[in-house]
Amino acid sequence: MKEKKDKKPKKGSKSTIGQQKPSVINPNALSLSTKSQRRPQTADEYIKGIQSGNRVILSQAITLIESTRSEDQALANIIVEAALPLAKESAIRIGITGSPGVGKSTFIEAFGKMLIAQNRKPAVLAIDPSSQQTKGSILGDKTRMHGLSQLKTAFIRPSPAGSSLGGVAKKTRETIILCEAAGFDTIIVETVGVGQSEIAVHSMVDFFLLLLLPGAGDELQGMKRGIVEMADMIAVNKSDGDRQTLAKQTKQAYKNALHLLPLKESGWSPPVLSCSALESEGIDEIWTAIGQYYQESQSNGFLQARRKEQARYWLNESIDHYLHQSFFENPAVKGAFDQIEKNLMAGQITSFEAARQLITIFKHKKDN
Amino acid sequence: MKEKKDKKPKKGSKSTIGQQKPSVINPNALSLSTKSQRRPQTADEYIKGIQSGNRVILSQAITLIESTRSEDQALANIIVEAALPLAKESAIRIGITGSPGVGKSTFIEAFGKMLIAQNRKPAVLAIDPSSQQTKGSILGDKTRMHGLSQLKTAFIRPSPAGSSLGGVAKKTRETIILCEAAGFDTIIVETVGVGQSEIAVHSMVDFFLLLLLPGAGDELQGMKRGIVEMADMIAVNKSDGDRQTLAKQTKQAYKNALHLLPLKESGWSPPVLSCSALESEGIDEIWTAIGQYYQESQSNGFLQARRKEQARYWLNESIDHYLHQSFFENPAVKGAFDQIEKNLMAGQITSFEAARQLITIFKHKKDN
Repeated sequence: MKEKKDKKPKKGSKSTIGQQKPSVINPNALSLSTKSQRRPQTADEYIKGIQSGNRVILSQAITLIESTRSEDQALANIIVEAALPLAKESAIRIGITGSPGVGKSTFIEAFGKMLIAQNRKPAVLAIDPSSQQTKGSILGDKTRMHGLSQLKTAFIRPSPAGSSLGGVAKKTRETIILCEAAGFDTIIVETVGVGQSEIAVHSMVDFFLLLLLPGAGDELQGMKRGIVEMADMIAVNKSDGDRQTLAKQTKQAYKNALHLLPLKESGWSPPVLSCSALESEGIDEIWTAIGQYYQESQSNGFLQARRKEQARYWLNESIDHYLHQSFFENPAVKGAFDQIEKNLMAGQITSFEAARQLITIFKHKKDN
Repeated sequence: MKEKKDKKPKKGSKSTIGQQKPSVINPNALSLSTKSQRRPQTADEYIKGIQSGNRVILSQAITLIESTRSEDQALANIIVEAALPLAKESAIRIGITGSPGVGKSTFIEAFGKMLIAQNRKPAVLAIDPSSQQTKGSILGDKTRMHGLSQLKTAFIRPSPAGSSLGGVAKKTRETIILCEAAGFDTIIVETVGVGQSEIAVHSMVDFFLLLLLPGAGDELQGMKRGIVEMADMIAVNKSDGDRQTLAKQTKQAYKNALHLLPLKESGWSPPVLSCSALESEGIDEIWTAIGQYYQESQSNGFLQARRKEQARYWLNESIDHYLHQSFFENPAVKGAFDQIEKNLMAGQITSFEAARQLITIFKHKKDN
């Protein structure tokens, strides 16, 4: 398939999305009025391009997912729903987190190359709703994974923009589906564990890897609490040169510590490994351990159960997010909110009374 | 004040609650039509009883909070809002969690007696929405704290019934306010850390204590992950007799482990202590450490900030809970839900498409 240059679709696309069943694609129902021949014209063309593994069309479809224009979003919804049955069920989804400086990019570069050497097709995504503040800290720059991004078998997509975690997480989850439909079988989602984002990532991957540095865990201090108990594996990176002894000690200390934390629902005991992404040491062992996890959690049914639970989580999350937004964007609620919150903060009313007052305003407004 | 026997208020109380400002008490506005003289007749009588420290009236007011009758709830709301400015600001709220068998009741008994000896007035509450399943596991039986419940300066209230955590947590939070208005200055909230309840408790207390047993942390294995990283202190209980050496080792192991976890936002390093509730050993030291936490977090403003954050959390939680309920109790949503969930679980649609379909149904229903 001929690759096409990235170009934004023009406004004014005809769409009859409301009447469309999401999984049935009618190539005539959604034709963009733009005259450009460089970008797919219909959902069907996007799907065919994605299914054939065309990386440019995949990128263009992800751009639709990330677009804030309602026509783009409607088209993206159709593409995602159509891609869902095409997505590789055997694809592995791995979340990777760690503080800035822990060497995530170097690790993913080495890990991705190792995967390719094993005939796997990795796709690297990122989730970081606060990327405005931590500019360039996360996949912002493809040059940080220069070697990997050169390889045709890998696909790298920087973090989508967005201020709300819910929005960014939705985009990332949809992007995972498209990548899996395009034949990528190992999805890596990178996150900086400084906010709520690692909880979102944890809810969209099968396996969650925490990278640490040799030492006393100081780099964890800026991170969200709960992150260690969330990890399916800890890898002590930069275990090279002078740091090897320290890395060994750190590994043992975390082994001891994890033993004292509650067991995971999966029954899986998170291993603690060490590696040097820079020297590509220990990367194979990490992949082997992930493989063991897959074998175990597939045979005991936990993997399937976790994915179903995640599907339910995101259903609830999406609905709650929509309801929350509708409520707080209601003009009457907006108008009353500041004073009610002030009374709450001054200790004049309880949270429940504040909620009652806002709900009364919301219901009254709705009923009229 | 004369103590009155506990008797349920009869139905059919006149109430004009909708028009009432919650913090203004009109003694005539809410008179129960029951002829019983044994129970306060008006919100004002309840408030006066609570403010005077009358434990029977306090109990009766809590029964109103726990009632599912709408008149009782309306009256309870007025009482709670009126009690709020009367609540002791200096009261300390401590959450205590630990697996069944760790000795929570014995610990609270010893801890409560020590508090009384120091001229404090403890109130012991419990939160356990799953108490149907874990019958009697949590404060169900006052005899488990026989000594403490005999003391006039202590107040013990078993876990409220209820199937939803949100509902139970709201009742407990409101009960805390009434206890503080009645002059209790040390509120202890007990929870079994097997569900989401410890997160709810963590969001209503100033200090969260995790009790463990001497050994390898096996008793933690049934607990929710994240619990260790949530604790402000770990106390290794049953450090007596033969177990003292093991307790010492356990203490050291957890000290090492906590050092490897992310630091708390408060800047507080959770200490690890040991105690024997049975022999009342080490209880003083725990109280001293809690005192240090209060001093630190009060002087650096964290305590006030945490309480404000908790107020915001419960405001959002209450609104989201209401919105979620309204949505899923909508007959049209209910009617369509099973099929849509089936499609989601079968992997035919994404969570986002399932959410879109349900939201469309909800909006359509509302608009007509």
